[in-house]
Amino acid sequence: MKQSELFLPTLREVPSDADIKSHQLLLRAGFIRQNASGIYSFLPLGKKVLQKVEAAVREEMNRAGSQEMMMPALQLADLWEESGRWQSYGPELMRLKDRHERSFALGATHEEVITSIIRDEIKSYKKLPLNLYQIQTKFRDEKRPRFGLLRGREFIMKDAYSFHHTQESLDETYETMKKAYSAIFERFKLNFRSVLADSGAIGGKDNHEFMVLSDIGEDWIAYSSESDFAANIEMAPVIDQYEMPEGEQLPIQAVDTRSARKIEEVAAELGCREDQIIKSLLFIADEKPVLVLVRGDHEVNEIKLKNVLDAEVLELASEDETAKWMGTAPGTIGPVNISGEISVIADTAVKYTKNAVCGANQESTHYINFNIDRDASAGKYADIRFIKEGDPSPDGSGTILFAKGIEVGHVFKLGKVYSEPMKAEFLDENGKNQTMIMGCYGIGVSRTLAAIAEENNDDKGLIWPLEVTPFDVHVIAVNSKNAEQAEAGEALYSQLKEAGFDCLYDDRPERAGVKFADADLIGIPVRITAGKKAGEGIVELKIRKTGESYELPVDDVLDAVKKELIKLAGN
Amino acid sequence: MKQSELFLPTLREVPSDADIKSHQLLLRAGFIRQNASGIYSFLPLGKKVLQKVEAAVREEMNRAGSQEMMMPALQLADLWEESGRWQSYGPELMRLKDRHERSFALGATHEEVITSIIRDEIKSYKKLPLNLYQIQTKFRDEKRPRFGLLRGREFIMKDAYSFHHTQESLDETYETMKKAYSAIFERFKLNFRSVLADSGAIGGKDNHEFMVLSDIGEDWIAYSSESDFAANIEMAPVIDQYEMPEGEQLPIQAVDTRSARKIEEVAAELGCREDQIIKSLLFIADEKPVLVLVRGDHEVNEIKLKNVLDAEVLELASEDETAKWMGTAPGTIGPVNISGEISVIADTAVKYTKNAVCGANQESTHYINFNIDRDASAGKYADIRFIKEGDPSPDGSGTILFAKGIEVGHVFKLGKVYSEPMKAEFLDENGKNQTMIMGCYGIGVSRTLAAIAEENNDDKGLIWPLEVTPFDVHVIAVNSKNAEQAEAGEALYSQLKEAGFDCLYDDRPERAGVKFADADLIGIPVRITAGKKAGEGIVELKIRKTGESYELPVDDVLDAVKKELIKLAGN
Repeated sequence: MKQSELFLPTLREVPSDADIKSHQLLLRAGFIRQNASGIYSFLPLGKKVLQKVEAAVREEMNRAGSQEMMMPALQLADLWEESGRWQSYGPELMRLKDRHERSFALGATHEEVITSIIRDEIKSYKKLPLNLYQIQTKFRDEKRPRFGLLRGREFIMKDAYSFHHTQESLDETYETMKKAYSAIFERFKLNFRSVLADSGAIGGKDNHEFMVLSDIGEDWIAYSSESDFAANIEMAPVIDQYEMPEGEQLPIQAVDTRSARKIEEVAAELGCREDQIIKSLLFIADEKPVLVLVRGDHEVNEIKLKNVLDAEVLELASEDETAKWMGTAPGTIGPVNISGEISVIADTAVKYTKNAVCGANQESTHYINFNIDRDASAGKYADIRFIKEGDPSPDGSGTILFAKGIEVGHVFKLGKVYSEPMKAEFLDENGKNQTMIMGCYGIGVSRTLAAIAEENNDDKGLIWPLEVTPFDVHVIAVNSKNAEQAEAGEALYSQLKEAGFDCLYDDRPERAGVKFADADLIGIPVRITAGKKAGEGIVELKIRKTGESYELPVDDVLDAVKKELIKLAGN
Repeated sequence: MKQSELFLPTLREVPSDADIKSHQLLLRAGFIRQNASGIYSFLPLGKKVLQKVEAAVREEMNRAGSQEMMMPALQLADLWEESGRWQSYGPELMRLKDRHERSFALGATHEEVITSIIRDEIKSYKKLPLNLYQIQTKFRDEKRPRFGLLRGREFIMKDAYSFHHTQESLDETYETMKKAYSAIFERFKLNFRSVLADSGAIGGKDNHEFMVLSDIGEDWIAYSSESDFAANIEMAPVIDQYEMPEGEQLPIQAVDTRSARKIEEVAAELGCREDQIIKSLLFIADEKPVLVLVRGDHEVNEIKLKNVLDAEVLELASEDETAKWMGTAPGTIGPVNISGEISVIADTAVKYTKNAVCGANQESTHYINFNIDRDASAGKYADIRFIKEGDPSPDGSGTILFAKGIEVGHVFKLGKVYSEPMKAEFLDENGKNQTMIMGCYGIGVSRTLAAIAEENNDDKGLIWPLEVTPFDVHVIAVNSKNAEQAEAGEALYSQLKEAGFDCLYDDRPERAGVKFADADLIGIPVRITAGKKAGEGIVELKIRKTGESYELPVDDVLDAVKKELIKLAGN
């Protein structure tokens, strides 16, 4: 394509309302434009990249045996009533009425529609499993749309839904989808992790998010320094790999710690490490008091605690409740000599403390040389704390690091959450009516594009990976009014096009500075510049990513481009 | 793809709510399903065909120099206020409010969005012309959605918009788009015409619809038996190719025609042909009386008449007005001896009548041997009638035929209809502010799919043209439980796939009758059947379109399929 004819409005200034790199650069490089808050147009280069992202997703989904289809954006409210989400979805679901006053949702997701189609068409286990996907526009009225394409109100998603007659069949498809997702994000060369995620209200433990590690991510994940283990920090288990400190148990002793209450204050007061202190917290679990002990350098993970206690309602005790059960204020409590009505639960790490510090259930006082097996009603040990950076990875390989992540994909075992209320049933091998088991699998397509842009840029602009670059090669005639340079540029453009490369040719009558700045901004991997030596048959090849450049004879350009693209594909 | 794994729910019965062939067959063959009135899902085979239609459209648009982009469905009401269409569009425009009570339209079309983008980005004539397109979902809340994909409420359109600094530049792009559209519909082998269309309220004479000739079409078009001339019947000009009848002018004479008033009654009463009678109609054009004369076998075209008279308001005179001006009732009036205040206009054909019949301005009486040049105030001749079947084609080649048409495309010179109110301006060569000149170009993508299905079917089902077929070849193992047939089927499937053919393999444990009925219904062009002779290495090849079939050795299948597909591509 000739750049003089391309609709590619680049900007020199950083748009004031764009906070993050990808948003700034996609605007500046003329890939997108905002039409309303959280609503964007893809200009020609943006659309090209989007199509390449879609093509890669499509290819891997097809390879994994999923079948492409397309469902409508306009969805009858009746369907959402059936699933119960017309009420529960809240203001993110955009709603409208047609001319006959029938209510519709604008598809935020398509579980209801696909479930209604499948329940109408599939009656026998013989037609299962099925795995169907679409690449389609979704509408979610985000409260605070932000970060450009990362959190918009109208965006492109690949959503897939699978239907099964057995749990094993779902498990198998789930694994296949996980593999396909890894293959997809690997094609984009993203630094991503498949992260064990919180299943939230829906339940079901198998639920993974695909997260691109990024400082602008909105979720924290814990991942291994060595293996591919990764989990939402709320979900990450801590394994029992503690060691008992050396030495003898010393006699327990109450000491004056004046006004010290917080762990760091106590540590300072007593001149000990935080991990030598035991933190005591009183919770009320389903109306019963539970004293919870964790090491001073650890934090209680209420999700784990709630699961371990199998509690419906779990809350930190109020001052009144603490006074009632412990006879003192929060921050002074401890596990020694407490009422038998209070159950005690300690994090596993507490088992491996010796001669520790703990609260003494009175102001200005702590015990030192506390040994839980000797000085307290032992209670129960369990993993009830948040994982920390430096902890051993739960899979036994490497240590834990923290990072923020951008969620680009999500695979989810839905079970019967939709199929049961919507009565998606089939006859099994014995002619018995059964409810279908479902999975769902999403990829934020336009968000993935933004994540790629976020990860691939420098001060000068975007640096597209080969898989999604809008063009393979950028040919620039430095001075289009110079006949030699224009001829060389034109000839290279024709030659590269003919050889099958997707080539952008900057034939504009602009200054060299403008052309180079635009080229850096747009970020095409390989650039060929026909400048002052064009008359001698010499041009320059430059790699956008490394900045590496060299001169070469015009006749060698085709081979050199081939070679460089192969090299880039390998990286 | 193996058919046992494909989501392809076929139906034996004709769905009761589907009136036309394409709708019935796309439902029965499992290509689409209705989700709500006028709203459809594309199941896997439907999606495949849709993608092929889109790919062909995309290829021709790119070739014609249009650049693909993508605009949002959610469009700020403010933009539609600017163009004035928020008020004027009516209930077809679907509207909704976001969580902040801002009003949005669901894109029924994108003139407003693209004009706002271009006016913000393009400031100079140097960046014009631009031609941009998208393939995207459109929403129109049709009063009576019908005919399946032909008139839906959510559908796929290719819409393009061009921006120009001169009329010549628009004219050039308009012609380029017309050529691209012809190329597109030729790829689909549709029997279509580019039809001169009524420009309606928007004005501007250049406005063509691309119509697929079809009995279920909703518009009438007049087209040439020989050339590619075609026009909306309201627009088609009639050329002056009449011949004066032989013979002498005879003396005019009043005759008693009793109660005969209608042309056919007068012809019967007098024993003459209808084309020998002159029909007289009194119109009131901008409050002035005009006597309009057309031949008895012709009909007045009020659009032409209004244009010729350059009238703001044109209406047939009432009985009272007729009495006032002609002293008699409608149906008895004629051009002889009338008030000088009444202007007379005659269709060109009237000039070429001799010794004709006309009303005599009194009951039960007509003149015979009326000769307009001798017996009436000549007035003015012009083309003011509807074209008829059998008329010479206005381009001088062939005669006119009538047909109904399905509108699949529309190209339109918009001029400044949007750019003026929305202030899309640029600086011209002289640094002067000018308003951009626009064109727009639409193709109903999902409607084109339906039109292809409507034109390509028989009693048994669909017959896909190669360009859009969901698969190239359909391999059927007649009895999948028979090892020889299953092996032969499997081998052929692998072999054809490997050779690059898109192959559907019916490996289902169904009865032969079901398999053949489904295959005919789905309509894949070439079918290979592994039946009883599979053990001897003999299979059958059948062409869906012609029904032609022959046996051949398994080893010859690849070559035969290649040959047959080439043959089909040529047809």
